[in-house]
Amino acid sequence: MTMNRRSLIGAAGLALGAPALQMAQAAEGAAPAAAPPTAKAPPPPVTKILAEFIRSSTYDGLPENVRREGVRTFLNWVGVAIGGSHHETLDIAVSALKPFSGPPQAGLFGRTERFDIMNAAFLNGVSSHIFDFDDTHLKTIIHPAGPVASAILAYAEMHPVSGKDFLDALVVGIEVECRIGNMVYPNHYDAGWHITGTCGPFGAAAATAKLMGLDEEKTIFALGLAASQLVGLRESFGSMNKSFNPGRAASNGLFAAILAAKGFTSSEHMIEVRRGWAQTISTKQDWSQITDGLGSHYESALNTYKPFACGIVMHPTIDAAIQTRDEDHVKPEDIRSVDLKVHPLVLELTGKTAPKTGLEGKFSIYHAAAVAFVEGAGGEKQFSDRAVNDPRVVALRQKVHPVVTPGIDAAQVDMTVTLNDGRTLHRHIVHAVGSVEKPMTDAQLDAKFKDLADGVLPAAQAERVLRMCRDLPNLSNAADVTRAGVAGA
Amino acid sequence: MTMNRRSLIGAAGLALGAPALQMAQAAEGAAPAAAPPTAKAPPPPVTKILAEFIRSSTYDGLPENVRREGVRTFLNWVGVAIGGSHHETLDIAVSALKPFSGPPQAGLFGRTERFDIMNAAFLNGVSSHIFDFDDTHLKTIIHPAGPVASAILAYAEMHPVSGKDFLDALVVGIEVECRIGNMVYPNHYDAGWHITGTCGPFGAAAATAKLMGLDEEKTIFALGLAASQLVGLRESFGSMNKSFNPGRAASNGLFAAILAAKGFTSSEHMIEVRRGWAQTISTKQDWSQITDGLGSHYESALNTYKPFACGIVMHPTIDAAIQTRDEDHVKPEDIRSVDLKVHPLVLELTGKTAPKTGLEGKFSIYHAAAVAFVEGAGGEKQFSDRAVNDPRVVALRQKVHPVVTPGIDAAQVDMTVTLNDGRTLHRHIVHAVGSVEKPMTDAQLDAKFKDLADGVLPAAQAERVLRMCRDLPNLSNAADVTRAGVAGA
Repeated sequence: MTMNRRSLIGAAGLALGAPALQMAQAAEGAAPAAAPPTAKAPPPPVTKILAEFIRSSTYDGLPENVRREGVRTFLNWVGVAIGGSHHETLDIAVSALKPFSGPPQAGLFGRTERFDIMNAAFLNGVSSHIFDFDDTHLKTIIHPAGPVASAILAYAEMHPVSGKDFLDALVVGIEVECRIGNMVYPNHYDAGWHITGTCGPFGAAAATAKLMGLDEEKTIFALGLAASQLVGLRESFGSMNKSFNPGRAASNGLFAAILAAKGFTSSEHMIEVRRGWAQTISTKQDWSQITDGLGSHYESALNTYKPFACGIVMHPTIDAAIQTRDEDHVKPEDIRSVDLKVHPLVLELTGKTAPKTGLEGKFSIYHAAAVAFVEGAGGEKQFSDRAVNDPRVVALRQKVHPVVTPGIDAAQVDMTVTLNDGRTLHRHIVHAVGSVEKPMTDAQLDAKFKDLADGVLPAAQAERVLRMCRDLPNLSNAADVTRAGVAGA
Repeated sequence: MTMNRRSLIGAAGLALGAPALQMAQAAEGAAPAAAPPTAKAPPPPVTKILAEFIRSSTYDGLPENVRREGVRTFLNWVGVAIGGSHHETLDIAVSALKPFSGPPQAGLFGRTERFDIMNAAFLNGVSSHIFDFDDTHLKTIIHPAGPVASAILAYAEMHPVSGKDFLDALVVGIEVECRIGNMVYPNHYDAGWHITGTCGPFGAAAATAKLMGLDEEKTIFALGLAASQLVGLRESFGSMNKSFNPGRAASNGLFAAILAAKGFTSSEHMIEVRRGWAQTISTKQDWSQITDGLGSHYESALNTYKPFACGIVMHPTIDAAIQTRDEDHVKPEDIRSVDLKVHPLVLELTGKTAPKTGLEGKFSIYHAAAVAFVEGAGGEKQFSDRAVNDPRVVALRQKVHPVVTPGIDAAQVDMTVTLNDGRTLHRHIVHAVGSVEKPMTDAQLDAKFKDLADGVLPAAQAERVLRMCRDLPNLSNAADVTRAGVAGA
C-alpha cells in the first residue's frame, strides 16, 4: 500500500466528547502539506473581528444614510421577490420541495404555499434573483439582499423581530457579506465563483446570528459553518441554477446559525487561516477590507438598484433617451437620427440591429434607445415581444447609430439627437440613473416595485406592501411584510 | 460611477421563460474575464460522460469483486453510523433541526427520531463520520460511503429500492465521487478543501439520480446542482464541522437530484468548462481520471476500512503487536523491550510517551503498542481512559522504543520484541491490516461492527442489522436496514 503523508492520519477514534474530538482531529489538520508556509505576517483574526462587529451593531448606532439605504435595499428586494414568484423556476422548486418541507412556518411572496423557514428562505431567495433585477454592490457584483433578507425574513416569522432590529440585522449581514467579497474580489470571481452564492452564506448566518443574539463563540461557529457551505459557479449563468445560488446561500446561512445556536462547533478562525475560506477560495486576500472602518464605513450604503430590465451596459443610453424625450419634449416621429458614442462593450454585447423578440431586444442598443424614446421607460414591458415589434419602435431603431468612441467609459454614453427640423439635442451621461452617484430616487424605486408586482398582486395589496417596506423601522414585526405580500393576503 | 466590464452586464429582465432566461444570462457569462483563454485542448464532456455512466450501470453488470466490496462498504458504514449516533455532535444536530423537519420519512441509526429524508440524510451522514472511523479511498482520502449511502438510504425509505438496485446506486455514486476526486487530487486537497465534502455531493446526486431513473439531461442537471453545493474546508478539522461536511454533502446531493427531477435546470458542462467546477476549485484537472476505464475499472473496489480506532500511522505497529501476541503467544509480562523502526511521521504525530487519557493515547505510539500486546486489539476500548491507565499497559509502554529509521515507509513498521528469557521475535509489516493489499477480513469487519454497535443497540438487534447488511443484494427493500437499525426496532 502506498500512502502519502496525508493519508496516514485519518482516524480520530470512538466515543470522544467534543473537545476531545477537536484535539483528535487537529492532529489530522496538523500534517504538513505540499505548499510551504509563507513568510508573510499572519492574517488578523477576521472571523473573530466580524463576530464582534455582528454582536455590537445596533439600530440606534447606524448612521442615518445607512438606515435609509437599508430600507431602500429591502423595498427593492421585496419587489423583485414578488416579481419572480410565478416564474417557472420557482414553480418547479416549490413543487419539488413541498413533500419534504417542515411545518408551514413561513410564506412565499406572491404565493399561497407555506414552508419551514429554511425552505422558505431558499425559495424567496431564488425568486428574488430570477430576473437578475435585484440590488448590486458594484465593487464586487454581489447581489447582497437575496441571501440575507430571505433568511432573516423567514426567521422573523417564527421569532418576532421589530423592524428596527430587522434593519440592523439586514445591514450587518450585507456588511459582512460585501466586506468578505471585497477581501477576495476580483480574483475569486475571475476564478469562476458566483460571488453572491459564496459570500451570501456569511451574510445570512451573520444576520441570523444577530437576531438570535448568539454569543461571540457561537457567532464565530455560525460563520465557520457558513464558510463550509459556499454556493455557486459562474458556469451556472444561463440556467435556473443561477437564481438557485442566492437562495441556497440564504438557507445555508440560516442552517449554519441554527446549528451554531445549539452548540454545534466549528473553527474559531475559519475565514483567515491557511486552510480556511479565504486562502482556499482565492489567490487574493486583502484583510484590510474586513478591518478598515468596520462599524463606521458601511459598504451596504453603496448598494445600487437597476432601473432598467436589461444589462447595465445599455442603461446610460436609455437614461439619455428618456431625459431627452421628457425634458426636451421630443416626439419619436420628429427624430431624424440618434447618434451614440459608446464603449466597445456596448456593441459587443448589445449589437443586435433587428431583434424579433423581447428577449432579443435586451441585446439590442438600437431597440433600447428607440423604445425609450417611444415609451419613456426601460422596464419589463419595454422588452416584450409587443414592444420590439411596435412599428414606431422598429422605425426609430433604424435611425439609431452607435459608434465606438475612445474616451467613453463603459458606464457612459454621449447622445446627439438630430430632429427633422435640423435642431440637435445633446446629452452626455457620465453617471446613469441607478449608479452609486445617481441613485434611483425613492419614487423610481416605488414605480419599479409596482411594476414588478403588477400581475402578481392586486394593486391595492402591492401598495400596502410597498408602504410597509418604506415604513420598515416602525414595524412592530418585520415578518408582517411577508404576511402582507403572500397571495390572497 | 466606476465599473469594470463584469459589472456592466447584470440584468437579464423580467418575465422570461426558462430558455429565454438561459439566453439572457448567457450574455452575462459571455463577458471576457481577466484570465486569457488557454491554448490547451478543450476538455472532454465529462459531465455528460458521467451521466451516461450513471444511467447505464446495472447490478447485473457489476463485476463480482465490485459487488462484494460494495457490501463491505455498506456494512462498515452502517456500523460507524450506529456507533456515532449518540455522540454529542449528533445530539446537538438532532435537537437543532427537529423544529424544521418535514414529515417523519426516514429514521436515524441508533435513535428514535424520524426526519424528512433530506435532514435524515444529513444526520446519518454526520453520525457516520464522527469517529473518523468510516471507509477511506486512499488515493484521494475521500470517505466515500457517507455522502452516498446517507442520501440513498433515506431516499429508499420513501421509494422502496431493492437491495440489488441500492448496491448498484451505491457503487455508481462512489465511482463518480472518487473519480472526480482523482481528477483534482492532490492539488484540490492541498489547497484546503475537505475533499469528502466537495466530491460527496456528486456521489449523492449521482446515486439518487440513478435510483430515480432520471433521463440524461436531468442527471446532468443534478450533477450541475451538486457541483454548485460543494462543502467543507480542512480548517474544520478538529471541530464538529468536520463530520458536518459529509452529512451536508449527502443532503446537498439529494437536494440537487430532487430539484433536477422536477426540471430545475443547470449547465450541461458544469464539471469541465472554464468557469465550471474542476477549473475553479483546483489547479489540476486530469480528465482521464474520469474517462479511463469508466464502467470496467472500479475505484469503489479500492475502498478500505480502518481496523483500529486511531490514526493510520499507528496501524502497522498495532498490527505487528497483535500478530506477535497471538501467533507467538507472547504475554506482556514476558517482554523486556519492544524496538520499533518507524517513519519520522510516527514520532511527529504520535510521540506522546506518558498519555493520561484515552484521547492522549491516540497520539502515543508507546501506548498503542503496549495496549495491543496486553489486550490484543486496537479498538475504541483500547483508547479509553481505563486502558491508558491500566498498570500493565503503563508498565509495558515504558519498554517501547521507537526509532526513526530511513527506508521505513510511513505505512510500515519493523518490530523486534526481546523477551525476558533473551529470545527475540521479529516482524516487518509492509502492508498493515486495513490496507488495500491486506484488507480487513469479513470476520474483522463483523467484529468492528459489533464493537461499534455495543452500547447503542442490543446485541441481538446489532446481529440482525449486520446480517441484513451482509445480505444486502437479496433484500427486497434496502431501507429495511435502517428500519432494523433504529433504536427500539
